[in-house]
Parts: sequence; structure tokens; C-alpha cells
Amino acid sequence: SREEAEAIEKELLEDYRFGRQQLIEIWGHACAMAVTKVFPLPSLPRKQPTVLVVCGPDQNGAIGLVCARHLRVFEYEPTIFYPKRSLNSLYRDFTTQCEKMDIPFLSYLPTEVQLINDAYNLVIDAILGADAEPGEVQEPYTSILATLKQIRIPIISLDVPSATGWDVEAGNSEGISPDMLVSLAAPKQCATRFLGRHHFLAARFLPYDVQKKFELNLPEYPGTECVVSL
Amino acid sequence: SREEAEAIEKELLEDYRFGRQQLIEIWGHACAMAVTKVFPLPSLPRKQPTVLVVCGPDQNGAIGLVCARHLRVFEYEPTIFYPKRSLNSLYRDFTTQCEKMDIPFLSYLPTEVQLINDAYNLVIDAILGADAEPGEVQEPYTSILATLKQIRIPIISLDVPSATGWDVEAGNSEGISPDMLVSLAAPKQCATRFLGRHHFLAARFLPYDVQKKFELNLPEYPGTECVVSL
Repeated sequence: SREEAEAIEKELLEDYRFGRQQLIEIWGHACAMAVTKVFPLPSLPRKQPTVLVVCGPDQNGAIGLVCARHLRVFEYEPTIFYPKRSLNSLYRDFTTQCEKMDIPFLSYLPTEVQLINDAYNLVIDAILGADAEPGEVQEPYTSILATLKQIRIPIISLDVPSATGWDVEAGNSEGISPDMLVSLAAPKQCATRFLGRHHFLAARFLPYDVQKKFELNLPEYPGTECVVSL
Repeated sequence: SREEAEAIEKELLEDYRFGRQQLIEIWGHACAMAVTKVFPLPSLPRKQPTVLVVCGPDQNGAIGLVCARHLRVFEYEPTIFYPKRSLNSLYRDFTTQCEKMDIPFLSYLPTEVQLINDAYNLVIDAILGADAEPGEVQEPYTSILATLKQIRIPIISLDVPSATGWDVEAGNSEGISPDMLVSLAAPKQCATRFLGRHHFLAARFLPYDVQKKFELNLPEYPGTECVVSL
């Protein structure tokens, strides 16, 4: 549930002294690794390995920025749409890293859905995370989600599928239908209604005592992998 | 050279706005990945997959702490010897993460070398990094290095082989002889005199423009690997 997700993050940050920068880096890297497993470069239908990464204003958006940076290193061609940039210096730094690595940023999202279908192989939804308040979604995200709901290329949602009137626990049948979900730390309740083909869990770093305390019953990760398919 | 290594780190921190916490996390994770490649769990001779991680006072020691934490997650049994703990809050946080994950910390290093040979499969040398001033090594590190020079189990050095009277450029034939070296960002000049069996390069995240600017001529990393064998 939303309260549990917050309690886990609080424990990691306050008791374990993980840094927010550190967690976002770990999660963003793990998301990129999960994408490479389901959609490896040779499997992409377009000539260019293009990926559109749509980033929201808060932590989920920052994880999207890190994911885009690692995808670039893995030779994908990410393009970022980040309509409302956070003033938070931590998020600004993650943005600068992408800009300095010449990852293009879109100034607007085409409303003509066919343009998105033709230009990209995949869309990564890093708009809303488990920390989003139910029903708080406003413009420009309502329009963006309306556009994403119509696209035909696969959508990968980070942590939770973003939705207008989103509720981490209840989910929202009106939202986008991602093909792939990468749950961060632990699957949120809404993940039980996820109907896509690929569900991954990231990241492996979660201390055993935290897993036990919150009765997460997480699966074993193979070898040194930072993600596991559920 | 030492100046180039400093210039690269400065560029990453100041121009690219990478965070120190972020870099230490990336490097520590990559070092742990490199260790698992050369010394996978089933290959270890002892019944318990024990690893001794010796951490210095500065950044190299913090990378050792992160490496130990990831090795723990990969089911190794690291023990940390960290004789001079930094007051830097960043390094303190990395220490807390290890403590809270129940990684044991030694209060002293046995001077009887056979005890170390018998108790551990590997020793990780995270004592000095490329930022160490030549000739500045003092106690307790001179004694520790004298002990490590006599041990028979494999030593893995992070970034540079630590040595008394160490010089990043000239190296030091009097120092320890690691079996494995994990060069961070780019091999330092002293690596040309490295005589061990395994030389790895980490981490892959280095932006292409930085590689080009400093004429690093780095090799290609296979797939999504964060380290490459040189």
C-alpha cells in the first residue's frame, strides 16, 4: 500500500542512511536493465533504437532521467519529454547529466498519436510514482496521459502505471495499459491489476531486515542481476 | 596521470553535475560485479564465502564500503576493516548502510598472517585511491600494508594497488602485489606495471565526450555489463 511504500522509503533514508541520490541512481539503472531484457536492441522494430521517456515532476521523473541516461550508455537513443522541471537541485543535477550527454529533450509532445508510433520503439512512463496523491494529476499530465492511452507502441511504466485520478491501491481502469511494469522496491497493490505481459521487480539492494519487517516475500534474484521477472 | 584523474572527476562533478554519492555508488557496485566475475561464489576455496574488505580514510575506502554491501547482497560474507572512520557525513552514511545490514567490522587486523589466510577467501584493498598524495601514507596503513604484503590469498585492489610511499604515476615495486586490479573511470599510469592476472575497468557510465576529451580510448563494454576485462 501507499503507506507501506512510504514507510519503507523512510526506513531506507532515515535508518539505513541511504541517500535519495543513491536510491534514484540504483532504481533508474535497474529500470534500464529491465528494459534491455524485454526489449533488447536487436528486437526493436525501428531502424533507430529510439525510446521516448516521459518524466513527471517528482521522484518518478528523476528515476526516468537516470533510466534514459543508462539506456543511452547501452546504445539506445532516448528522447526525454520533461514538461515541468523540478527546482529541486537533486533532480536538476540528473537533468544536467542527460543534457550534457546530448540526450534530446522535446519541448512538446505531438498530439498526433501516429507521429509517436512512427518515431519511437517504446515509451517509458516515468510520470507518477507511488508517492503521487490520489486525484492530484493536473495539466499537462492529463493531456499527456490521454495521448499515451492511444498509442500502439509498448509502454513501460516505472513503479506504477500513471493515470489521471490515479490511486496506488485501487489502481485505475481508465488509465494507460502498459505492456511492462517495473515495480520499485516492492510491487504496489495496484500491480495486482496489471494486465501487461512483463512485470519486473527492482532493485535488489533492499536489505534483508527491511524485507522481513514489511513481510515483502520477495523472489530470489538470479546471479548478480539487479532485477527479477515476476 | 594523477592530474588527469582529478580533472576527469572534476568535470564529472562540476560540469556533468554527477554527485559524489552517485559516483561512489556506481563505482562500488561495479567493483563488486568485477569481483563476482573473477571469483564467483562456487569458485571460493573456503566453506564460507568470506571476503575481507580493508577501507582507507577517503573516497577509495567509501567505494570499498559500497563494494562490501553489494557483495553481501550477492551472498558473499564480507567483513570490513575500517580503522580510521571519516567524519564526512557522506562516508558515514555508507558506513551505516553496512552496519545496518549486519556486515561485521573488525576492531583490529590480525598481525598473524596465517589467521587471515585461513579465515578469508579474498582481500579487497580499498585503502588508497588515485587521490592519495605520494608519500603521505601513515600508520595504521603502513602496518596494514606490511601485513597484506605477506598474505597468500588473492588481493583485489580498487583503482590503484595501495602502497607505502605510493605514487599513482610511478607505482611502487615495494607495495602489495594484487591478483586483480579494478581501474575506476580509466586505468592510472601505474596500471602499466600491474603484474596480476585480472585487470578490469569500471565504470561504463563515463560520458562519451569525457572519454574523447581526455583521449581515453576505452574498450567497448559487452552487452549491459558495467565492467570490462582488459
